[in-house]
Amino acid sequence: MRLSEVAGKVGLTFSGHDIEITGVNTLAAAGPNEIAPLMSKKYLPQLATTRAGAVLSDARLADQIGLACLASANVKLDWARVVTLFAKPQGCLSGVSPQAFIHADAVLEESVTVYPFAFIGARAHISAGSTLYPGVYVGEDCRIGTGCTVYPNAVLMADTVLGDGVTVHAGTVLGADGYGYAQGPTGHVKIPQLGNVVIGNNVEIGANTAIDRAALESTRIGDGTKIDNLVQIAHNVQTGKHCLIISQVGIAGSTTLGNGVVLAGQAGLRDNISLADGVQVAAQSGVGVDLPPGAVAGGSPSMDASTYLKVSMLLPKLPELMRRVRRLEKAAEAIADAGNKEDANG
Amino acid sequence: MRLSEVAGKVGLTFSGHDIEITGVNTLAAAGPNEIAPLMSKKYLPQLATTRAGAVLSDARLADQIGLACLASANVKLDWARVVTLFAKPQGCLSGVSPQAFIHADAVLEESVTVYPFAFIGARAHISAGSTLYPGVYVGEDCRIGTGCTVYPNAVLMADTVLGDGVTVHAGTVLGADGYGYAQGPTGHVKIPQLGNVVIGNNVEIGANTAIDRAALESTRIGDGTKIDNLVQIAHNVQTGKHCLIISQVGIAGSTTLGNGVVLAGQAGLRDNISLADGVQVAAQSGVGVDLPPGAVAGGSPSMDASTYLKVSMLLPKLPELMRRVRRLEKAAEAIADAGNKEDANG
Amino acid sequence: MRLSEVAGKVGLTFSGHDIEITGVNTLAAAGPNEIAPLMSKKYLPQLATTRAGAVLSDARLADQIGLACLASANVKLDWARVVTLFAKPQGCLSGVSPQAFIHADAVLEESVTVYPFAFIGARAHISAGSTLYPGVYVGEDCRIGTGCTVYPNAVLMADTVLGDGVTVHAGTVLGADGYGYAQGPTGHVKIPQLGNVVIGNNVEIGANTAIDRAALESTRIGDGTKIDNLVQIAHNVQTGKHCLIISQVGIAGSTTLGNGVVLAGQAGLRDNISLADGVQVAAQSGVGVDLPPGAVAGGSPSMDASTYLKVSMLLPKLPELMRRVRRLEKAAEAIADAGNKEDANG
Repeated sequence: MRLSEVAGKVGLTFSGHDIEITGVNTLAAAGPNEIAPLMSKKYLPQLATTRAGAVLSDARLADQIGLACLASANVKLDWARVVTLFAKPQGCLSGVSPQAFIHADAVLEESVTVYPFAFIGARAHISAGSTLYPGVYVGEDCRIGTGCTVYPNAVLMADTVLGDGVTVHAGTVLGADGYGYAQGPTGHVKIPQLGNVVIGNNVEIGANTAIDRAALESTRIGDGTKIDNLVQIAHNVQTGKHCLIISQVGIAGSTTLGNGVVLAGQAGLRDNISLADGVQVAAQSGVGVDLPPGAVAGGSPSMDASTYLKVSMLLPKLPELMRRVRRLEKAAEAIADAGNKEDANG
Repeated sequence: MRLSEVAGKVGLTFSGHDIEITGVNTLAAAGPNEIAPLMSKKYLPQLATTRAGAVLSDARLADQIGLACLASANVKLDWARVVTLFAKPQGCLSGVSPQAFIHADAVLEESVTVYPFAFIGARAHISAGSTLYPGVYVGEDCRIGTGCTVYPNAVLMADTVLGDGVTVHAGTVLGADGYGYAQGPTGHVKIPQLGNVVIGNNVEIGANTAIDRAALESTRIGDGTKIDNLVQIAHNVQTGKHCLIISQVGIAGSTTLGNGVVLAGQAGLRDNISLADGVQVAAQSGVGVDLPPGAVAGGSPSMDASTYLKVSMLLPKLPELMRRVRRLEKAAEAIADAGNKEDANG
Repeated sequence: MRLSEVAGKVGLTFSGHDIEITGVNTLAAAGPNEIAPLMSKKYLPQLATTRAGAVLSDARLADQIGLACLASANVKLDWARVVTLFAKPQGCLSGVSPQAFIHADAVLEESVTVYPFAFIGARAHISAGSTLYPGVYVGEDCRIGTGCTVYPNAVLMADTVLGDGVTVHAGTVLGADGYGYAQGPTGHVKIPQLGNVVIGNNVEIGANTAIDRAALESTRIGDGTKIDNLVQIAHNVQTGKHCLIISQVGIAGSTTLGNGVVLAGQAGLRDNISLADGVQVAAQSGVGVDLPPGAVAGGSPSMDASTYLKVSMLLPKLPELMRRVRRLEKAAEAIADAGNKEDANG
């Protein structure tokens, strides 16, 4: 595709030669028919050595590029659009494999792809244009929207609902039983988990993540929310729209997130709390209380992020602080002793 | 089923109209033929608006309900029993699928269900009433007790033993090699892991959890222990009976738990330590030492929980503490200076 | 095998009777035809009660054994070698199952084993002596080296490359999309992930781990690196050779590890940092900065390990420290008051 065509498709202007673009790459690795992004000023020196044929750059830097250039007001966003033009989808089959198991009572709309060894249970409904990879399990009464992709060995237990345009990466389990027990006289008694999982539109869920079904009603993930790998979302959790939940985060039962909440890696949220719209939680933090809109929290247990930053800077100085307090105590004793002597002498 | 029949089955008395009960739900969502639990006093206001036909309530609150009511001395436990009456099991097939792979030397007792694409290896023994979902792998020489459920894509490597009534949720791996290496002259040398995993009766294991086989002998999970999702249990770990191990906990090699130990989410235990009966560990804690019976620990590294609570409250005050110490130091200097001047003047 | 033969194969001398050895075990559990290791002096008392027929021991302790004995200069390493002699491999089938799916354009070299329900995509290349267990997914254009083992339900998304002698345990996902989004006007816009995952020779990867493909170029794991269960390795991460990455560690995008780096359990590394050769990170630590060769770090956020040790010891004393500072402040006030009175009186 010509650079002019790339520019047209993403709505940008270009300068320089209208070369043929065959792919995308980094400044370091790109060849003469590839376009590379200049993500920030600090990469400007790489322009001296790059072999890239074209560059996507902040419009304010465009005159410093010296190469064919697309000028952008938002490089990261426009880069996502350029890359999308050159992305090839995963997979090598289409249509419904005779080596899949499809229950007689399941419904498959048109243009559905089902790979060998996928399993579709009774009354499951797979909407148009969705793809189920090998080893995918779709339990009875599941509903999968249009244009969804469920990668190998992902599991949707019974009654799970996916909206439209949902991506579930390999090995992820949706709708396993929530962790609910009552203490009985001879051990823990299971509280059967009768609810389900409902995933909104355009949600993406990483690999080997687990989202449990609700005890009753539904565990819900809001539209546009993006969940990373190895995340735990317990029963009855509710997330808002457009949240970002990074790898290895754990959210305990019945906790709710507003819209646009960001949880960094390995953070943990206790059960039955509420994080309002726009809350941000730092990596490895432990949140045990409700947080108001826009709060930024860090630490375990969490505190206001600016306090956490100060505390983090001071913690390594705790041994020195201890010594300083000891020194003060000795000084105080010396003063007291001197006072006593004076009294005795006085 | 009539409310009177529900009451009879769980051994409770009922008051009010003997209505037909078709299911269970929350106070907020229940309809006129559903029963809902009143889990604590704080939900009493919901009674004004609930559409539930009946309520399960603490006997001491029963006269405030104003609805058909089951009176309980332990609402959570009796709720577990009521829900069990209305739970429908997962799954839509029974019997042994011709699309499963069953080794000629495997033994299947009566009433076993094996879904398509399950694999049962040589000399594996599946006892009566157990169910293996699609994509389940049962390695050679595994023994599965009666009434077990192994959900989709769970993996039991060779020699794994499940007791009776065990539930393994989707994607969980039992009996992968423990992480054992010796330092050799040209890199890490694998110590082959020859032991196995032995799971007691009535154990439940969540989704995408990993329990490694022992180096030699067995990794053991005691009867009635309940393990959540994404938990890591390393080689040679031994847990007692009725432990609760919450999501994303990690237990390193050869560590032992007594009976009734509770490990909250994302806690980590180092290798070769011992937690006695009834120990409780707070979320995100890191335990590096043996803990005596009934100890309650928190923090990373862990300390006594009551100390941890105080430390947690004081940590955000560390910047202020630092300023206070600086102020004291200045005061001490001023006193010293004054003393010096006095000496000079004296 | 005779003890003399065991000695010969691992290059050690033996003393005592040349008994028949049928297996390996612990000192506590070994029988008269088994060999057990004496891993350190502290286990010497077990020699009084062991039923083991032979012992592998530090050469300096050999004269205290009183049993047939292999004398070693490195017990752990020689034990790895002895155990290897007696290890039986997992699995009960060989050859290519007709119940596997193998794309017409895939290439399988000689002596490859493919179990039922494994899936091999277009143009994938499986080299000699490799084994793919049930439920394994090998995406299009993957290349698997010689003598690799991929355990049940592990997933290699398209373009993944395994070197020679690689082991991937059950449920692990290699090459899922990295977590990359740009903020758009109506939500997060996916940046398609076009790179791949490249695993070096003799790498072992535990169960239910996730290693994401690069955005562009490759996520790389160096030769001889050993990765445990439930580990998260994000897009564009580069690890050196012979690293040890313990369970539940998370490494964020584009971070690089030198050779021989050790990351203990549940540690987290932020994105775009660099840990040089030989760095060691304590369990549950959070590393947010570059670390120089041989650095040992602990804590979240991490600090020098020796500082961290002191801070950890002092943290439980924070309440007491607070009280001591209060006491000093009162003493300072008393002195100030006394001074004021003196001034007033003077």
